[in-house]
Amino acid sequence: MKIVNTVAEVREQVKEWRKQGLTVGLVPTMGYLHEGHKSLIDRAVADNDRVVVSVFVNPMQFGPSEDLESYPRDMDRDAALCEDAGASLIFHPEPSEMYHDDFSSFVDMSTLTGGLCGKTRPIHFRGVCTVVSKLFNIVTPDRAYFGQKDAQQLAVIRHMVSDLNFGIEIVGCPIIREEDGLAKSSRNTYLSPEERKAALVLSRSLKLGKKLIEDGEKDARKVIAAIRGEIEKEPLAKIDYVEIVDWNTLEPVESTEGEILTAMAVYIGKTRLIDNFIK
Amino acid sequence: MKIVNTVAEVREQVKEWRKQGLTVGLVPTMGYLHEGHKSLIDRAVADNDRVVVSVFVNPMQFGPSEDLESYPRDMDRDAALCEDAGASLIFHPEPSEMYHDDFSSFVDMSTLTGGLCGKTRPIHFRGVCTVVSKLFNIVTPDRAYFGQKDAQQLAVIRHMVSDLNFGIEIVGCPIIREEDGLAKSSRNTYLSPEERKAALVLSRSLKLGKKLIEDGEKDARKVIAAIRGEIEKEPLAKIDYVEIVDWNTLEPVESTEGEILTAMAVYIGKTRLIDNFIK
Repeated sequence: MKIVNTVAEVREQVKEWRKQGLTVGLVPTMGYLHEGHKSLIDRAVADNDRVVVSVFVNPMQFGPSEDLESYPRDMDRDAALCEDAGASLIFHPEPSEMYHDDFSSFVDMSTLTGGLCGKTRPIHFRGVCTVVSKLFNIVTPDRAYFGQKDAQQLAVIRHMVSDLNFGIEIVGCPIIREEDGLAKSSRNTYLSPEERKAALVLSRSLKLGKKLIEDGEKDARKVIAAIRGEIEKEPLAKIDYVEIVDWNTLEPVESTEGEILTAMAVYIGKTRLIDNFIK
Repeated sequence: MKIVNTVAEVREQVKEWRKQGLTVGLVPTMGYLHEGHKSLIDRAVADNDRVVVSVFVNPMQFGPSEDLESYPRDMDRDAALCEDAGASLIFHPEPSEMYHDDFSSFVDMSTLTGGLCGKTRPIHFRGVCTVVSKLFNIVTPDRAYFGQKDAQQLAVIRHMVSDLNFGIEIVGCPIIREEDGLAKSSRNTYLSPEERKAALVLSRSLKLGKKLIEDGEKDARKVIAAIRGEIEKEPLAKIDYVEIVDWNTLEPVESTEGEILTAMAVYIGKTRLIDNFIK
């Protein structure tokens, strides 16, 4: 496995693979890889001849008061995980390689990005769409892999790929959880032992909501109220949002029938965590 | 030469060419082709094994009061010109093929697009960047060809390709003029005989400005004033803008030294015409 830092090196390697008729999968990440990322790489290795993992904490998707500086990084561990999982190349650029001094272009969309996480993170999806477009153009993969943990991101990327005619298959992969239910996230490392326990309220309340729906509750507002009630019992938790939306349009729904996304963002202390289920 | 209307047909054809190891050039147009377009196709045919010409009057780059509906169209003549010039494929999609009902993505930039034509056409370059991104993703050409007549568009596309890492070479081609100096444009067809004569004021005044600079005039304001003075002699002409800007940043300059773009948009009756020179 190679680790490269420049766009030119990635292009050269992919060109070489293409000459040999090999297929290429891309797993875009911000590094500090965990079992969730590993599941994406595993799937990409199964589907493609060669797999590129990008490791880049993208400044453009962080708001001014967010955790860009403190976002955890551990390139040695990331490299070992990628190598073990069978990736062929890590692309680990400096911000200056991705954003030259007079950089000013962006990719954005007028639907899907305003609600859910977009409410508290207004420039986030513009940053995501822009950097993912860049990675798509640099790597030109056959397939790209995104976790359902970032459900809105997955929906946004799928929509962007369709709108802008990227010739790339987007593969969404299931949420990977700790044994006690907490969705794997690089940001879990921010949690104190006490907060780590409190963070279980996300998966626990979602499970409750899912059961209500499975038991026949059709009124989305009632399901949301039950989930909120469960979260509010936890003193360390502060709700950013709990919403039930159409999985394709991400518009709020009144009924729990059809393909819906139940999603939440909850602060545990200062750490903002997200979780969801799709049914 | 084939004419196709769907994205899928273009992809299939390009895939076939790629299998044969052939290079592909793209000439994006809005149709009603003239000698200016022909010069782009000629250059593309010289540089590439296969050439795709897209013919699409892109609704997204027209403002609400602009000439989307009246924009001239003549597919039979366009097809004959492309075939004569040696193009291999025309991509002529319906708007619904390019913009499905829930289309909402866009590509834009925060520099280069606000001045010059961007002042009176505020959504124009967003439409251009978006449709060109789509065409790049559909055709995946090695090279794409743009006329210097639309100088701001050429600068914007070059900047977008660099920012978003499109692996495509952008080739700018010189302005083609009528024998009397008028820059070729599909919109010249809007001009009455009287307006057609008045329209010569664009190239004539630019020539005057160019001579002033060649004779040593360093003050951009003085050159602009001379050009404006010449245009104002023509009763049918109404200036939209006359500007001298840095050719890379499109920011106004005070001195005529360095690589500069002298550009204008002038209404002749109701028809808005543009012209420029780069030195």
